[in-house]
Amino acid sequence: MKAAVVRKEHFNAAHRLHNKKWSDEQNQRIFGKCNNPNYHGHNYELLVKLVGEVDPDTGYLFDMKLLSDIIKEEVITPFDHRNLNLDLAEFKTLNPTAENIAYVIWHKLRNRIDEKFDLKITLYETERNIVEYPAD
Amino acid sequence: MKAAVVRKEHFNAAHRLHNKKWSDEQNQRIFGKCNNPNYHGHNYELLVKLVGEVDPDTGYLFDMKLLSDIIKEEVITPFDHRNLNLDLAEFKTLNPTAENIAYVIWHKLRNRIDEKFDLKITLYETERNIVEYPAD
Amino acid sequence: MKAAVVRKEHFNAAHRLHNKKWSDEQNQRIFGKCNNPNYHGHNYELLVKLVGEVDPDTGYLFDMKLLSDIIKEEVITPFDHRNLNLDLAEFKTLNPTAENIAYVIWHKLRNRIDEKFDLKITLYETERNIVEYPAD
Amino acid sequence: MKAAVVRKEHFNAAHRLHNKKWSDEQNQRIFGKCNNPNYHGHNYELLVKLVGEVDPDTGYLFDMKLLSDIIKEEVITPFDHRNLNLDLAEFKTLNPTAENIAYVIWHKLRNRIDEKFDLKITLYETERNIVEYPAD
Amino acid sequence: MKAAVVRKEHFNAAHRLHNKKWSDEQNQRIFGKCNNPNYHGHNYELLVKLVGEVDPDTGYLFDMKLLSDIIKEEVITPFDHRNLNLDLAEFKTLNPTAENIAYVIWHKLRNRIDEKFDLKITLYETERNIVEYPAD
Amino acid sequence: MKAAVVRKEHFNAAHRLHNKKWSDEQNQRIFGKCNNPNYHGHNYELLVKLVGEVDPDTGYLFDMKLLSDIIKEEVITPFDHRNLNLDLAEFKTLNPTAENIAYVIWHKLRNRIDEKFDLKITLYETERNIVEYPAD
Repeated sequence: MKAAVVRKEHFNAAHRLHNKKWSDEQNQRIFGKCNNPNYHGHNYELLVKLVGEVDPDTGYLFDMKLLSDIIKEEVITPFDHRNLNLDLAEFKTLNPTAENIAYVIWHKLRNRIDEKFDLKITLYETERNIVEYPAD
Repeated sequence: MKAAVVRKEHFNAAHRLHNKKWSDEQNQRIFGKCNNPNYHGHNYELLVKLVGEVDPDTGYLFDMKLLSDIIKEEVITPFDHRNLNLDLAEFKTLNPTAENIAYVIWHKLRNRIDEKFDLKITLYETERNIVEYPAD
Repeated sequence: MKAAVVRKEHFNAAHRLHNKKWSDEQNQRIFGKCNNPNYHGHNYELLVKLVGEVDPDTGYLFDMKLLSDIIKEEVITPFDHRNLNLDLAEFKTLNPTAENIAYVIWHKLRNRIDEKFDLKITLYETERNIVEYPAD
Repeated sequence: MKAAVVRKEHFNAAHRLHNKKWSDEQNQRIFGKCNNPNYHGHNYELLVKLVGEVDPDTGYLFDMKLLSDIIKEEVITPFDHRNLNLDLAEFKTLNPTAENIAYVIWHKLRNRIDEKFDLKITLYETERNIVEYPAD
Repeated sequence: MKAAVVRKEHFNAAHRLHNKKWSDEQNQRIFGKCNNPNYHGHNYELLVKLVGEVDPDTGYLFDMKLLSDIIKEEVITPFDHRNLNLDLAEFKTLNPTAENIAYVIWHKLRNRIDEKFDLKITLYETERNIVEYPAD
Repeated sequence: MKAAVVRKEHFNAAHRLHNKKWSDEQNQRIFGKCNNPNYHGHNYELLVKLVGEVDPDTGYLFDMKLLSDIIKEEVITPFDHRNLNLDLAEFKTLNPTAENIAYVIWHKLRNRIDEKFDLKITLYETERNIVEYPAD
């Protein structure tokens, strides 16, 4: 019996979109108000989806309490109430777009979730801007 | 023209996670507070998705009023305001995890929906814990 | 500067509506499917509102982390994943309608929140059935 | 790095379900209250999903401001506060079911989005009736 | 024990904002796209709030099933899937703004709810435009 | 006919809670992770409520398009994608708690809305932390 489970968590963070290789003019032209040098921020909503076999003894695909704990250790504790550009080594050179944040989160969780489960991240930067990684 | 339609319904039920083959200690260790012998409960949100061809005469993939009626007959009427463990034959031996509830609902609806439509269930136990069956 | 702050928390519980002084027939007639002897359940959403003066030094009306901790101690820990009728002394004789649950929560929190703050409870039994105590 | 981005927009419109080739009796039997000759209406929520490669220089799969502008030009401006049957050439002969609205929107946007991106539409007619085109 | 209960229901309708005493130019200037002669529509969300004493025998302020039935009879059945301007006698001369719709609903329900309960209507025309009647 | 209208808008901003008169230790003790010197951020949801008389000619209490424009000029344009502490004169010395942000927004809008309307602000910092100013 193959199924999927999804756990929803959230974190609040500041960020700024900026490519250090570009001039200020080019950054402003491409990223607009998201390039504000003083940062802005979001309430990020994070959905973590695992696909795999349901254990017939527990009826669980994955213990959701354990999944929540792993997400908190890997993502919520280091990301919540932080400045993604300044406080997180992952975004020292990587631009913290929603696409790249989802990519970083996927890799951090991939290390902690058994390879027998497929893993997919959906990240809501706002309720109108959403990213999925990897794509279906 | 192949598309998908999704109908959302809801039911409120009590349940308890418990494996009758295990000791009380093991049940408590695996299921924690979800093992409370006196039960707890949820407002379950149910999404039923059909994939198939749109009828060119009606412009419908499936009549959503009919889909709602089928879901009510097969799921909402028997599940709503019930204790899943005690009141439903399906869970006399099957542990009513969200995964297993989605599996049972899928089979009940599969009997009523023409095989030319693919069928998928998404079940929200809470807004933070979600199950999909089958997996994409 | 008088304002209000609201903190939202949630708990999942089983309950049954039943008046022990009435016959089974009367209970069934008045409470319908909510009278199921095997219980049903809900994801309760709880809003706790405090009205008072904002502290000019902190800019806080009340520390929301502290408010969350008080709600967890007084309500979430004892109510979450429980059967309100069987597991909670407050509902041994009091029928756990949403009205009465809000009333009990208000009294539990009133003991912990300084009287200089007005206190109001809004309880969502479902997204369609909501209770406020006290009334505005 | 292949990912997906989703942009959410909304429009409010009137419509009526009706097949001009059928008698009034057949229209009423098939479409019920949705056949009201005086129309009814909805707040449509539209999700537009693009799947493709993330640009390593910008960290963007697609500029979401540009995607929002394209959706506004192609869908929101012509559809919002309109009668789909009377005001839109696309539905002069095509019945404006949610399935057909999603199909029309997909074609309008497909002309504006580079073919290197896969395109998918999800349309909420209400929070309970949802259509996806094309199907996964 | 004085409290409040709120019941949420919904209906989907077409309407047009128009003052028959004004010229077309003035109607267009004041109501803009809401004046479209072919109508547009909304998914209206309706909250009905009653304030009063909780019955100590039932623990109910008001039977929510009965409240839902009254709302359905007085509002949902006549308003749902209708054109407010054309299909409803109440709006033959009264402009169906959200303010006036709330006012009409209040009067229809006031006739059915015992005067010992205060009655208040909140109407969501969209999630961004909301009306309350009467004001607190 | 006295009623209320509510308009919902949103902005995304970075902020940091900090009292310049206090030591770093005291700021950390009182504000915890909200004191992060590199800032964090939120998607703020703003509800602006006006209470007053409905105009019998228009059926409007207030033109919601005009209200939206005023909120955009006074709040969304200056606040959105900004750092409240660094970019806004209002918070150079005032700590940008949700209470104080609501207070500042109220005063900015009060200057633009005719005194015949009562004005109230509800600000969602997250869906779990909400402030109202003034209190009812």
